[in-house]
Amino acid sequence: MVRPVHGGNLVWASQLAACHPNELLDFSASISPLGPPFSVREAIQAAFSSAVNYPDPAYGALNAAIANHHNIPVDYVLPGNGAAELLTWAARDLAERCTHTFLLAPGFSDYERALKAFSARHFAIDLLDSGGWHIEQWDETLSDISKTINSKAVNAKTVDLHQCGLLLNNPHNPTGTMFSAQKVRSLLTKFALVVVDEAFMDFLSPDRDQSVVDAVTAFSNLVVLRSLTKFYSIPGIRLGYAVAQPDTLQRWQKWRDAWPVNSFAVAAGVAALEDTAFTQRTWEWLEAENAYLYEGLVACERLSPLPSCANFFLVACDVSVTELQVQLLKRHKIYIRDCMSFRQLGDRFFRVAVKSREDNQRLLDSLSDVLPELKTVGHGS
Amino acid sequence: MVRPVHGGNLVWASQLAACHPNELLDFSASISPLGPPFSVREAIQAAFSSAVNYPDPAYGALNAAIANHHNIPVDYVLPGNGAAELLTWAARDLAERCTHTFLLAPGFSDYERALKAFSARHFAIDLLDSGGWHIEQWDETLSDISKTINSKAVNAKTVDLHQCGLLLNNPHNPTGTMFSAQKVRSLLTKFALVVVDEAFMDFLSPDRDQSVVDAVTAFSNLVVLRSLTKFYSIPGIRLGYAVAQPDTLQRWQKWRDAWPVNSFAVAAGVAALEDTAFTQRTWEWLEAENAYLYEGLVACERLSPLPSCANFFLVACDVSVTELQVQLLKRHKIYIRDCMSFRQLGDRFFRVAVKSREDNQRLLDSLSDVLPELKTVGHGS
Repeated sequence: MVRPVHGGNLVWASQLAACHPNELLDFSASISPLGPPFSVREAIQAAFSSAVNYPDPAYGALNAAIANHHNIPVDYVLPGNGAAELLTWAARDLAERCTHTFLLAPGFSDYERALKAFSARHFAIDLLDSGGWHIEQWDETLSDISKTINSKAVNAKTVDLHQCGLLLNNPHNPTGTMFSAQKVRSLLTKFALVVVDEAFMDFLSPDRDQSVVDAVTAFSNLVVLRSLTKFYSIPGIRLGYAVAQPDTLQRWQKWRDAWPVNSFAVAAGVAALEDTAFTQRTWEWLEAENAYLYEGLVACERLSPLPSCANFFLVACDVSVTELQVQLLKRHKIYIRDCMSFRQLGDRFFRVAVKSREDNQRLLDSLSDVLPELKTVGHGS
Repeated sequence: MVRPVHGGNLVWASQLAACHPNELLDFSASISPLGPPFSVREAIQAAFSSAVNYPDPAYGALNAAIANHHNIPVDYVLPGNGAAELLTWAARDLAERCTHTFLLAPGFSDYERALKAFSARHFAIDLLDSGGWHIEQWDETLSDISKTINSKAVNAKTVDLHQCGLLLNNPHNPTGTMFSAQKVRSLLTKFALVVVDEAFMDFLSPDRDQSVVDAVTAFSNLVVLRSLTKFYSIPGIRLGYAVAQPDTLQRWQKWRDAWPVNSFAVAAGVAALEDTAFTQRTWEWLEAENAYLYEGLVACERLSPLPSCANFFLVACDVSVTELQVQLLKRHKIYIRDCMSFRQLGDRFFRVAVKSREDNQRLLDSLSDVLPELKTVGHGS
């Protein structure tokens, strides 16, 4: 079986580990280990009988719950079959409304897939090409984005940023770095269209949250994508939403069929957004376990984790990650995310989710077991 | 609350009926009353724990089940978030690969939505414009489609059918008429691309089935869309698939995200396609109840149902259907499908699903109760 391009393929991994997918300890997908919350499980069970009906094509109850959650008008919300479905339509807007679209590299590989699907002229702004990980400079990269774009991506004379699009990820995947809301807001007057994928923003408590959802009422050129599947541990159900001005969302709605969100996702979403106790518990868990796993990874020889505000870490190392991945699967049934699908990263980086204390410890122990036996290879090779 | 354009909106209907959506007797959606089969319910329950994982992006188990069901190679299959999702991509192909696309009118309103989404130049072949319902002539319309198109839709001089697309529905919705497989096959040498929506074909037993799925290996210009939600009564779960040559399906796959089908739909689909006992039971039910409901509708004064091979009937009548619909809701909590979204039909037609004997009888009794009180209006008004 060929190594999956995208990562996150449990079927492939479980075959290597010679076990059932459920027996894997999966650090590859950045899904909360706390969910699904009991409220969501109950809601899904209760939705069972509604599978015999088409979902409400207006998605009234779900839209109201999302709008209420963000305190925005209900017509500023469009639910989707995962944020991934909505990314496809955001990319179509970028393709049709912008002369060029810029995105950060490394970045989620589906961004390029979606932009290519509509032949968008797109360029990556390389965050690493100054020869290393200088995350403190990233904010500057973003601040002075005109200069960055003109120096790195395309010829200054040919590009008018006011006709260009920007596709950002905040917090940034795979690094876990976060841009300030103020910085992202400052881009709204510079670009024709700014799409911000905030798939991991709900992992941040209100005092740290840098969402720009509250800017959509003022800016018609802002689209925010959010996911419900990572925070509530329901990626199999598929649920995300877009927040943008009604004109944009009504245009997307005509591009897609009447029932993109299934009935279980509707029920799960409504219940999830009401469960403030689960949210609080998640914030507390992440604060503790993010620190614990980071310290543990730092202490591993041959590993250099990047500080992250999210529920995952990008780790640089001086061994072959594809080898490390295979050994962790075969010997410990632990599945880490290789970074082969992230251009610029390749075989010297892996990503791991933050999980429970016990699982994080098991990962650290397994790394200590496997790492010493692997051959050292330079970062650059 | 405004009358929904699309029909099939239980929330709207239940508010009129002043009851919970579950209390409605819903004849509007053409969903089997026999399902979901026990096998599918069990599979969904068992899939609960898999909601915490992303679906297998290769959809290996589901694709294998579908391919096995049709006895075709597995790479001729692409599952979707309902057949409706796949229609969107089929329409994109029609838009990009054909100079004009033809479709039958009346027809499913989402066909036009999908074609417009990609600015396809499309024309309706009106099945009614010779002044009435001469279904026996439809086969001829299809046989002699070049003549039909040239006389009815566009100027003969400007259209080369070999560069055109055709979007067919077989059995045809909303009439329930079926074209022969032989006739549909004969179109494959005439058009650049033929998309056949066989959403209701599984309701026909093998001796009556007119599917062209088995022609995909020979014809690269054929796409067949199938639904699993109607036959197995799981429209809330969203599951359909396309059958076509691998080149086509791989192109579509790049246009959409990696996980369009949710985990419950995967589990339901695999279980459903194995349940041959349920299939047999459905065929037997439909044969008996199609005949029973047809006879009952024929016996109703002021109603003229069209003969149908499917699990629904289109009924012409000489009263206002929007009035009839509201009275049936208010007095009997029965929801019939108005035909306002089908151009050419309007307020003198409704569609009803075939349901259980008891429910069919309740519909007939309620019609007998409500119809005499409604004002007669001509077919043409």
